[in-house]
Amino acid sequence: MEHSKDEYYMQMALGEAAKAAARDEVPVGAVIVAGTTVIARAHNLTETLNDPTAHAEMQAITAATASLGGKYLSGCTIYITIEPCVMCAGALAWSQISEIVYGSPDEKKGYTTVGSQILHPKTVVRSGTMADECSEIMKTFFRKKRD
Amino acid sequence: MEHSKDEYYMQMALGEAAKAAARDEVPVGAVIVAGTTVIARAHNLTETLNDPTAHAEMQAITAATASLGGKYLSGCTIYITIEPCVMCAGALAWSQISEIVYGSPDEKKGYTTVGSQILHPKTVVRSGTMADECSEIMKTFFRKKRD
Repeated sequence: MEHSKDEYYMQMALGEAAKAAARDEVPVGAVIVAGTTVIARAHNLTETLNDPTAHAEMQAITAATASLGGKYLSGCTIYITIEPCVMCAGALAWSQISEIVYGSPDEKKGYTTVGSQILHPKTVVRSGTMADECSEIMKTFFRKKRD
Repeated sequence: MEHSKDEYYMQMALGEAAKAAARDEVPVGAVIVAGTTVIARAHNLTETLNDPTAHAEMQAITAATASLGGKYLSGCTIYITIEPCVMCAGALAWSQISEIVYGSPDEKKGYTTVGSQILHPKTVVRSGTMADECSEIMKTFFRKKRD
Protein backbone atom coordinates (compact mmCIF):
# COMPACT_ATOMS: atom_id res chain seq x y z
CA MET A 1 0.00 0.00 0.00
CA GLU A 2 2.85 2.34 0.95
CA HIS A 3 4.47 1.27 -2.29
CA SER A 4 1.56 2.21 -4.55
CA LYS A 5 1.06 5.51 -2.69
CA ASP A 6 4.73 6.34 -3.35
CA GLU A 7 4.27 5.45 -7.02
CA TYR A 8 1.16 7.60 -7.29
CA TYR A 9 2.95 10.74 -6.09
CA MET A 10 6.19 9.91 -7.91
CA GLN A 11 4.18 9.73 -11.13
CA MET A 12 2.99 13.26 -10.33
CA ALA A 13 6.60 14.37 -9.73
CA LEU A 14 7.53 12.81 -13.08
CA GLY A 15 4.79 14.91 -14.67
CA GLU A 16 6.50 17.98 -13.20
CA ALA A 17 9.86 16.79 -14.54
CA ALA A 18 8.28 16.48 -18.01
CA LYS A 19 7.14 20.11 -17.74
CA ALA A 20 10.75 21.09 -17.03
CA ALA A 21 11.99 19.11 -20.05
CA ALA A 22 9.44 20.88 -22.24
CA ARG A 23 11.03 24.18 -21.17
CA ASP A 24 14.52 22.87 -21.90
CA GLU A 25 15.26 22.68 -18.16
CA VAL A 26 17.05 19.72 -16.53
CA PRO A 27 14.00 17.51 -15.86
CA VAL A 28 13.56 17.25 -12.10
CA GLY A 29 10.16 17.40 -10.42
CA ALA A 30 8.98 17.53 -6.81
CA VAL A 31 5.66 17.13 -5.01
CA ILE A 32 4.97 17.74 -1.31
CA VAL A 33 2.09 15.96 0.40
CA ALA A 34 0.52 16.62 3.81
CA GLY A 35 -1.63 13.60 4.69
CA THR A 36 -3.40 12.98 1.40
CA THR A 37 -3.30 16.61 0.25
CA VAL A 38 -0.82 17.80 -2.34
CA ILE A 39 0.37 21.16 -1.01
CA ALA A 40 3.08 21.87 -3.60
CA ARG A 41 4.25 20.74 -7.02
CA ALA A 42 7.21 22.26 -8.80
CA HIS A 43 9.83 21.64 -11.45
CA ASN A 44 13.33 22.91 -12.02
CA LEU A 45 13.38 26.48 -13.39
CA THR A 46 17.05 27.49 -13.03
CA GLU A 47 17.41 28.50 -16.70
CA THR A 48 14.04 30.21 -17.06
CA LEU A 49 14.55 32.25 -13.90
CA ASN A 50 18.33 32.65 -14.26
CA ASP A 51 18.51 31.48 -10.66
CA PRO A 52 20.74 28.65 -9.43
CA THR A 53 18.50 28.28 -6.34
CA ALA A 54 15.35 27.55 -8.40
CA HIS A 55 15.53 23.76 -8.07
CA ALA A 56 12.22 21.89 -7.98
CA GLU A 57 12.64 21.07 -4.28
CA MET A 58 13.39 24.67 -3.22
CA GLN A 59 10.32 25.98 -4.96
CA ALA A 60 8.20 23.17 -3.54
CA ILE A 61 9.42 23.92 0.01
CA THR A 62 8.64 27.63 -0.38
CA ALA A 63 5.17 26.86 -1.78
CA ALA A 64 4.40 24.22 0.86
CA THR A 65 5.38 26.39 3.83
CA ALA A 66 3.38 29.27 2.35
CA SER A 67 0.42 26.91 2.01
CA LEU A 68 0.71 25.74 5.64
CA GLY A 69 1.51 29.20 7.03
CA GLY A 70 4.54 28.02 8.98
CA LYS A 71 8.18 27.36 8.21
CA TYR A 72 8.17 23.65 9.15
CA LEU A 73 7.09 20.65 7.12
CA SER A 74 6.97 18.03 9.86
CA GLY A 75 4.23 15.56 8.99
CA CYS A 76 4.84 16.06 5.26
CA THR A 77 6.45 13.90 2.56
CA ILE A 78 8.38 15.20 -0.43
CA TYR A 79 8.57 13.12 -3.62
CA ILE A 80 11.51 14.00 -5.87
CA THR A 81 12.44 12.33 -9.13
CA ILE A 82 16.19 12.56 -8.40
CA GLU A 83 18.26 12.49 -5.20
CA PRO A 84 18.43 16.05 -3.83
CA CYS A 85 21.66 18.06 -4.00
CA VAL A 86 23.41 19.50 -0.95
CA MET A 87 21.51 22.81 -1.17
CA CYS A 88 18.13 21.09 -1.34
CA ALA A 89 19.02 18.59 1.39
CA GLY A 90 20.08 21.53 3.59
CA ALA A 91 16.75 23.24 2.92
CA LEU A 92 14.86 20.02 3.69
CA ALA A 93 16.81 19.78 6.95
CA TRP A 94 15.70 23.27 8.01
CA SER A 95 12.09 22.36 7.11
CA GLN A 96 12.20 19.29 9.38
CA ILE A 97 10.20 17.38 6.76
CA SER A 98 9.17 13.90 7.94
CA GLU A 99 9.82 11.87 4.80
CA ILE A 100 11.87 12.17 1.64
CA VAL A 101 11.12 9.76 -1.22
CA TYR A 102 13.36 10.02 -4.26
CA GLY A 103 13.53 8.00 -7.44
CA SER A 104 16.97 7.84 -8.99
CA PRO A 105 20.30 8.44 -7.21
CA ASP A 106 22.55 11.32 -8.34
CA GLU A 107 26.05 9.97 -8.05
CA LYS A 108 27.71 13.28 -8.91
CA LYS A 109 25.68 15.93 -7.11
CA GLY A 110 23.50 14.01 -4.67
CA TYR A 111 23.71 15.00 -0.99
CA THR A 112 24.87 11.51 0.00
CA THR A 113 28.17 12.20 -1.79
CA VAL A 114 28.90 14.65 1.06
CA GLY A 115 27.32 12.86 4.00
CA SER A 116 23.84 11.88 5.06
CA GLN A 117 24.20 13.79 8.35
CA ILE A 118 22.95 16.85 6.47
CA LEU A 119 19.29 15.92 7.01
CA HIS A 120 17.27 16.38 10.18
CA PRO A 121 17.79 13.30 12.38
CA LYS A 122 14.05 12.50 12.39
CA THR A 123 13.67 12.56 8.59
CA VAL A 124 13.04 9.15 6.99
CA VAL A 125 14.42 8.59 3.48
CA ARG A 126 13.18 6.08 0.91
CA SER A 127 14.78 5.79 -2.50
CA GLY A 128 14.32 3.82 -5.70
CA THR A 129 10.63 4.49 -6.38
CA MET A 130 10.21 4.40 -10.19
CA ALA A 131 13.97 4.84 -10.41
CA ASP A 132 14.13 3.70 -14.04
CA GLU A 133 11.54 6.23 -15.22
CA CYS A 134 13.15 9.03 -13.17
CA SER A 135 16.57 8.23 -14.56
CA GLU A 136 15.33 7.76 -18.13
CA ILE A 137 13.82 11.25 -18.42
CA MET A 138 17.20 12.70 -17.40
CA LYS A 139 19.16 10.49 -19.81
CA THR A 140 16.84 11.38 -22.70
CA PHE A 141 17.27 15.08 -21.90
CA PHE A 142 21.06 14.99 -21.86
CA ARG A 143 21.18 12.72 -24.94
CA LYS A 144 19.20 15.34 -26.90
CA LYS A 145 21.51 18.08 -25.57
CA ARG A 146 24.51 16.28 -26.99
CA ASP A 147 22.93 15.72 -30.43
CA MET B 1 43.61 47.60 1.07
CA GLU B 2 41.87 44.25 0.65
CA HIS B 3 41.27 44.37 4.37
CA SER B 4 39.55 47.74 4.39
CA LYS B 5 37.47 46.80 1.33
CA ASP B 6 36.28 43.69 3.15
CA GLU B 7 35.42 45.79 6.22
CA TYR B 8 33.50 48.28 4.11
CA TYR B 9 31.19 45.64 2.63
CA MET B 10 30.98 43.67 5.88
CA GLN B 11 29.74 46.84 7.58
CA MET B 12 27.01 46.95 4.93
CA ALA B 13 26.14 43.30 5.63
CA LEU B 14 25.98 44.15 9.35
CA GLY B 15 23.49 46.89 8.46
CA GLU B 16 21.37 44.22 6.79
CA ALA B 17 21.67 42.01 9.87
CA ALA B 18 20.45 44.92 12.01
CA LYS B 19 17.37 45.19 9.77
CA ALA B 20 16.68 41.50 10.42
CA ALA B 21 17.02 42.02 14.17
CA ALA B 22 14.55 44.91 13.99
CA ARG B 23 12.02 42.44 12.50
CA ASP B 24 12.73 39.89 15.21
CA GLU B 25 14.58 37.69 12.69
CA VAL B 26 17.87 35.92 13.46
CA PRO B 27 20.27 38.73 12.47
CA VAL B 28 22.22 37.58 9.43
CA GLY B 29 22.98 39.89 6.51
CA ALA B 30 24.56 39.40 3.08
CA VAL B 31 25.87 41.66 0.33
CA ILE B 32 27.04 40.62 -3.15
CA VAL B 33 29.51 42.79 -5.03
CA ALA B 34 30.55 42.63 -8.71
CA GLY B 35 33.72 44.68 -9.10
CA THR B 36 32.85 47.74 -7.04
CA THR B 37 29.10 47.52 -7.66
CA VAL B 38 26.75 46.20 -4.98
CA ILE B 39 24.31 43.99 -6.92
CA ALA B 40 22.41 42.54 -3.93
CA ARG B 41 21.80 43.13 -0.25
CA ALA B 42 19.52 40.98 1.86
CA HIS B 43 18.75 39.87 5.39
CA ASN B 44 17.24 36.77 6.87
CA LEU B 45 13.43 36.67 6.49
CA THR B 46 12.55 33.09 7.46
CA GLU B 47 9.97 34.13 10.08
CA THR B 48 8.42 37.00 8.11
CA LEU B 49 8.01 34.84 4.99
CA ASN B 50 7.35 31.55 6.84
CA ASP B 51 10.01 30.09 4.58
CA PRO B 52 13.01 28.08 5.80
CA THR B 53 14.82 28.84 2.53
CA ALA B 54 14.66 32.64 3.01
CA HIS B 55 18.18 33.00 4.41
CA ALA B 56 20.04 36.23 3.64
CA GLU B 57 22.43 34.45 1.27
CA MET B 58 19.68 32.71 -0.73
CA GLN B 59 17.83 35.94 -1.31
CA ALA B 60 21.07 37.71 -2.21
CA ILE B 61 21.95 35.01 -4.77
CA THR B 62 18.50 35.22 -6.37
CA ALA B 63 18.70 39.03 -6.52
CA ALA B 64 22.28 39.07 -7.82
CA THR B 65 21.65 36.56 -10.62
CA ALA B 66 18.50 38.46 -11.59
CA SER B 67 20.58 41.64 -11.67
CA LEU B 68 23.23 40.06 -13.89
CA GLY B 69 20.76 38.17 -16.08
CA GLY B 70 22.59 34.87 -15.74
CA LYS B 71 22.67 32.07 -13.21
CA TYR B 72 26.40 32.31 -12.40
CA LEU B 73 28.20 34.66 -10.02
CA SER B 74 31.79 34.08 -11.13
CA GLY B 75 33.70 37.32 -10.65
CA CYS B 76 31.52 38.26 -7.65
CA THR B 77 32.15 38.34 -3.90
CA ILE B 78 29.55 37.64 -1.21
CA TYR B 79 29.95 39.18 2.25
CA ILE B 80 28.04 37.35 4.97
CA THR B 81 28.01 38.18 8.67
CA ILE B 82 27.98 34.50 9.70
CA GLU B 83 29.42 31.34 8.17
CA PRO B 84 26.86 29.99 5.66
CA CYS B 85 24.87 26.83 6.41
CA VAL B 86 24.89 23.72 4.21
CA MET B 87 21.92 24.93 2.14
CA CYS B 88 23.52 28.31 1.45
CA ALA B 89 26.95 26.82 0.76
CA GLY B 90 25.29 24.43 -1.70
CA ALA B 91 23.59 27.37 -3.42
CA LEU B 92 26.88 29.30 -3.54
CA ALA B 93 28.50 26.23 -5.11
CA TRP B 94 25.90 26.18 -7.90
CA SER B 95 26.47 29.91 -8.46
CA GLN B 96 30.24 29.40 -8.90
CA ILE B 97 30.82 32.61 -6.94
CA SER B 98 34.49 33.66 -6.88
CA GLU B 99 34.85 34.75 -3.25
CA ILE B 100 33.07 34.20 0.04
CA VAL B 101 33.94 36.49 2.93
CA TYR B 102 32.24 35.74 6.23
CA GLY B 103 32.57 37.28 9.66
CA SER B 104 31.88 34.90 12.51
CA PRO B 105 32.02 31.08 12.37
CA ASP B 106 28.86 29.05 13.07
CA GLU B 107 30.06 26.06 15.00
CA LYS B 108 26.64 24.36 15.03
CA LYS B 109 25.18 24.93 11.59
CA GLY B 110 28.10 26.19 9.47
CA TYR B 111 28.89 24.28 6.29
CA THR B 112 32.39 23.43 7.51
CA THR B 113 30.84 21.12 10.13
CA VAL B 114 29.92 18.86 7.18
CA GLY B 115 32.90 19.33 4.90
CA SER B 116 34.37 22.16 2.92
CA GLN B 117 34.18 20.14 -0.32
CA ILE B 118 30.65 21.49 -0.70
CA LEU B 119 31.86 24.69 -2.38
CA HIS B 120 32.98 25.06 -6.00
CA PRO B 121 36.72 24.20 -6.19
CA LYS B 122 37.58 27.68 -7.55
CA THR B 123 35.81 29.60 -4.77
CA VAL B 124 38.14 31.43 -2.37
CA VAL B 125 36.98 31.79 1.25
CA ARG B 126 38.10 34.41 3.76
CA SER B 127 36.73 34.48 7.30
CA GLY B 128 37.06 36.58 10.42
CA THR B 129 36.30 40.02 8.97
CA MET B 130 34.69 42.01 11.81
CA ALA B 131 34.03 38.68 13.53
CA ASP B 132 33.38 40.28 16.92
CA GLU B 133 30.70 42.63 15.61
CA CYS B 134 29.09 39.85 13.54
CA SER B 135 29.02 37.54 16.53
CA GLU B 136 27.86 40.21 18.98
CA ILE B 137 24.69 41.07 17.04
CA MET B 138 23.73 37.38 17.18
CA LYS B 139 24.53 37.04 20.88
CA THR B 140 22.52 40.16 21.72
CA PHE B 141 19.57 38.81 19.73
CA PHE B 142 19.52 35.44 21.48
CA ARG B 143 20.13 37.03 24.89
CA LYS B 144 17.00 39.16 24.43
CA LYS B 145 15.06 36.07 23.27
CA ARG B 146 15.91 34.32 26.53
CA ASP B 147 14.94 37.26 28.76
